[in-house]
Amino acid sequence: MRIEDYQHFKPLILDYYDKAQIVLTEQEKLNLELADFGLNEFAQIGLSLVTFINTERCCAKEMVLLPGQTCPEHRHPVIPELDYPGKEETFRCRSGMVYLYVEGEPAAEIYGMLPESGKDYYSVFHQIVLREGEQYTIQPNTKHWFQGGPEGAVVSEFSTKSLDEYDIFTDPRIDRIPRIEE
Amino acid sequence: MRIEDYQHFKPLILDYYDKAQIVLTEQEKLNLELADFGLNEFAQIGLSLVTFINTERCCAKEMVLLPGQTCPEHRHPVIPELDYPGKEETFRCRSGMVYLYVEGEPAAEIYGMLPESGKDYYSVFHQIVLREGEQYTIQPNTKHWFQGGPEGAVVSEFSTKSLDEYDIFTDPRIDRIPRIEE
Repeated sequence: MRIEDYQHFKPLILDYYDKAQIVLTEQEKLNLELADFGLNEFAQIGLSLVTFINTERCCAKEMVLLPGQTCPEHRHPVIPELDYPGKEETFRCRSGMVYLYVEGEPAAEIYGMLPESGKDYYSVFHQIVLREGEQYTIQPNTKHWFQGGPEGAVVSEFSTKSLDEYDIFTDPRIDRIPRIEE
Repeated sequence: MRIEDYQHFKPLILDYYDKAQIVLTEQEKLNLELADFGLNEFAQIGLSLVTFINTERCCAKEMVLLPGQTCPEHRHPVIPELDYPGKEETFRCRSGMVYLYVEGEPAAEIYGMLPESGKDYYSVFHQIVLREGEQYTIQPNTKHWFQGGPEGAVVSEFSTKSLDEYDIFTDPRIDRIPRIEE
């Protein structure tokens, strides 16, 4: 991600946490992760997150989605060499609204919009709308993608251990590990 | 717990969630757990909680402590018959303040007060003060107890699977499974 994008978006993202009354430590604010998946169009395809805890056994994150911002289609595979059965994750919407698409019966209609860039890499999956206080659990190795509603969203993730570098994205252009370009 | 106590305290507890901007579904409000550990002095020794998710692999809860209310000393043991290495849990203070006491070097001073009832069943453990946005991870089978600060607290718990019925409390009078007495 371009450093000027990081500097532009970071205060906007922190404001989402603040408005949702989610208090972060100064260290967590410093470590705030803005993931653009190497596509350099963060406002359209991206995700912001703070990792509260990620041990061998469990993980909790607090994520922010901008209005219409999409976290692209991916799955969390079984990792035989680590004897890891794949990540199980529960998303709980804390504020705003999130559209979640999960492998299964295709949706009758799409509430949001497919991202323009790489739109062939998104499936018209079973669609779940999560409003404040609503949640959904995604099983390991299940393809999914999600998108912020019209006012964006703050979403808690409760899961087993996160091993982001093993995630498999449908869009072959994607690089999950964030890099800041000076 | 006496049903009149449940009816008295429930709206107070829901107000803590509300003020911390933690939105609950109607079903979660119905299922709100007020644990008095069978001691019938909930304002002094008790804990309120909503379990968001509790699968074979991970668990998330949102807890409320009234001002000075204590969750009594206990540990989450290894459970050999379930091949379970014991519950690991992270407490994150969302609002207010919580005093946490964990097995280890004894504290130089106690910020809060030992509960009057059953006070011999509390150890003067290593003391951690969690303010908003601060968190601490408790390892399996480690004795701990915790208490709401002067304005109470809302505390998120991120953990491995919860098996409350296996928890071992120091106070032999305690019965963890809540029962409402008509």
